[in-house]
Amino acid sequence: MSDIVVVYHSGYGHTRKVAEHLARGANAELLAIDDNGDLPESAWDTLAKARTIVFGAPTYMGNASWQFKKFADASSKVWFTRGWQNKLFAGFTNSASPAGDKGVTLAWLQTLAAQHGGLWISLGMAPSNTKAAKNTDLNALGGSTGLLVQSPSDASVDEIPQGGLDTATAFGTRIAEITKQFA
Amino acid sequence: MSDIVVVYHSGYGHTRKVAEHLARGANAELLAIDDNGDLPESAWDTLAKARTIVFGAPTYMGNASWQFKKFADASSKVWFTRGWQNKLFAGFTNSASPAGDKGVTLAWLQTLAAQHGGLWISLGMAPSNTKAAKNTDLNALGGSTGLLVQSPSDASVDEIPQGGLDTATAFGTRIAEITKQFA
Amino acid sequence: MSDIVVVYHSGYGHTRKVAEHLARGANAELLAIDDNGDLPESAWDTLAKARTIVFGAPTYMGNASWQFKKFADASSKVWFTRGWQNKLFAGFTNSASPAGDKGVTLAWLQTLAAQHGGLWISLGMAPSNTKAAKNTDLNALGGSTGLLVQSPSDASVDEIPQGGLDTATAFGTRIAEITKQFA
Amino acid sequence: MSDIVVVYHSGYGHTRKVAEHLARGANAELLAIDDNGDLPESAWDTLAKARTIVFGAPTYMGNASWQFKKFADASSKVWFTRGWQNKLFAGFTNSASPAGDKGVTLAWLQTLAAQHGGLWISLGMAPSNTKAAKNTDLNALGGSTGLLVQSPSDASVDEIPQGGLDTATAFGTRIAEITKQFA
Repeated sequence: MSDIVVVYHSGYGHTRKVAEHLARGANAELLAIDDNGDLPESAWDTLAKARTIVFGAPTYMGNASWQFKKFADASSKVWFTRGWQNKLFAGFTNSASPAGDKGVTLAWLQTLAAQHGGLWISLGMAPSNTKAAKNTDLNALGGSTGLLVQSPSDASVDEIPQGGLDTATAFGTRIAEITKQFA
Repeated sequence: MSDIVVVYHSGYGHTRKVAEHLARGANAELLAIDDNGDLPESAWDTLAKARTIVFGAPTYMGNASWQFKKFADASSKVWFTRGWQNKLFAGFTNSASPAGDKGVTLAWLQTLAAQHGGLWISLGMAPSNTKAAKNTDLNALGGSTGLLVQSPSDASVDEIPQGGLDTATAFGTRIAEITKQFA
Repeated sequence: MSDIVVVYHSGYGHTRKVAEHLARGANAELLAIDDNGDLPESAWDTLAKARTIVFGAPTYMGNASWQFKKFADASSKVWFTRGWQNKLFAGFTNSASPAGDKGVTLAWLQTLAAQHGGLWISLGMAPSNTKAAKNTDLNALGGSTGLLVQSPSDASVDEIPQGGLDTATAFGTRIAEITKQFA
Repeated sequence: MSDIVVVYHSGYGHTRKVAEHLARGANAELLAIDDNGDLPESAWDTLAKARTIVFGAPTYMGNASWQFKKFADASSKVWFTRGWQNKLFAGFTNSASPAGDKGVTLAWLQTLAAQHGGLWISLGMAPSNTKAAKNTDLNALGGSTGLLVQSPSDASVDEIPQGGLDTATAFGTRIAEITKQFA
């Protein structure tokens, strides 16, 4: 079992692909929240044993999808027992616009981690934002609190800009290093 | 039909009571989101005709309940047609602590209104925050972007501090005045 | 005297250029906060008489520049007397990355307007975020709560993407229409 | 020299007193930002050597005081060199209302830490929010992302509720434990 678990909801497959790239970099286990906002019962044990939990959700109407929020509300049972106290947490989100209120989602994911008494791992990468910047660069959107990925509104799962996926993998590697250091 | 509609989710009845007090002050119609995050189909017509929409939800795990978020995600159909463009919006939330991340919920409710191209009505009341302040005062929690209500974790629906309910009614009155002025 | 006042701070001239384009669309008066965070004394009278106040600042280190914050702190004198109660407000920000925590600045500008008892005018434009989107489009960054402009870190004042400037002008026009409607 | 540094601005002495209590619990060094938003030049060396940096500021007009923001803007020199990458960070704020937009300040302090590539230590305490809760309790305001302290608007420095000061000391102890674990 991995020390790192990525728990995510994906509406149309884009967020799943980002989760997979992040998990590859982190050597992490993936837990998918289903379309009804539920997890298999065993997933809660996996989360309990994790050293680091990474939250992922698409940004819809300015915040994480309701399915992800249903998972977060269900985690209140864990909250009552301080079951995730002092775990490490990180987060990512995907939406169609470059900015597009992704920061609102990430600010809340940080708050969720803090409600659970956690430590939050930032993206930790300088932005690529000169005139020559391309969407194949690492952190070309300029994220800080977590990973931001843009998938244009008419982009298929195979058309997510490579820079977003590469940033996911690099962030996964960072999360693994921090997890190792903190253990 | 009223020009003002209060659309809310309530988990245990406290947020409903706040909604009722606000609606009394505003002479507004109430629309309740059910435990599965759904509204009756007719509710979308009511919302379409409203001049002003007031959002209300409890704060769970640092944000609006998933049922309210499911409503917000469903409103993306309206978003595509800019159907709520230039409506007036306002918001409120209830939770067990005086502060307790209620501001995160309100920041997102403002973002939701902005996604729809709306105008946001602030609470518009100076706080009552001297040493002599009591929880029967108006705006004793110090809200600004919207209405904050605290219901202690073991308080029944009949034990919500009166100041919270009175602030709800007063905010309703303010919303009605602004709605009239903007019409 | 115009009903609409744009009060802004600009560190290197980019935010000033955005302010000028917005002011052109809104037929607004411009008030520049200086490098020490101060306004001429007469500016406070201009603000007092305005129907609509538009806040503008660069995003530095994840929030509005300290000079803009100094102006906001100075506005606490007005706050004590509820002097800006029920005015209309809007906001914009500029930074080097497409996303880059601009949303944090705008969330606070909304909060500042709410502290003053105001109404907040959202950007009110659908995003341009398909695969074919260009940085000459309106709202190509996907803003909602206010205007987002990106000026790459090595872009001169004359190299701000045209879409950002055009969005500023269009937002100004929207602000003028709402101001007229609300009067 | 301590591994933990508390860098703060205090307008009227209340935030200083909170900083002192937190520093006692953490066995931390205190660095005071002056009324012009400046630090002594040696302070930047102290910050460079710290393992953990705690940010503290009053909330004025919905965000940290401009003096604290001036310090944050000055830290952009460190940002360019990633000088604070992977440090631990935490934050606190004080204002006159129980809620009162303190969360906006803390959300930004987290963002500032993330811009620097840091890890964020949450408050990590369950709230005291039953009907029997008193302002001498730990975390009676219900903070999560950081420490919230209320000093009523007419309270002298000696009249800050004891629970706020005790929570500061307890948070300091937590920060020291996490710092030791991460070293």
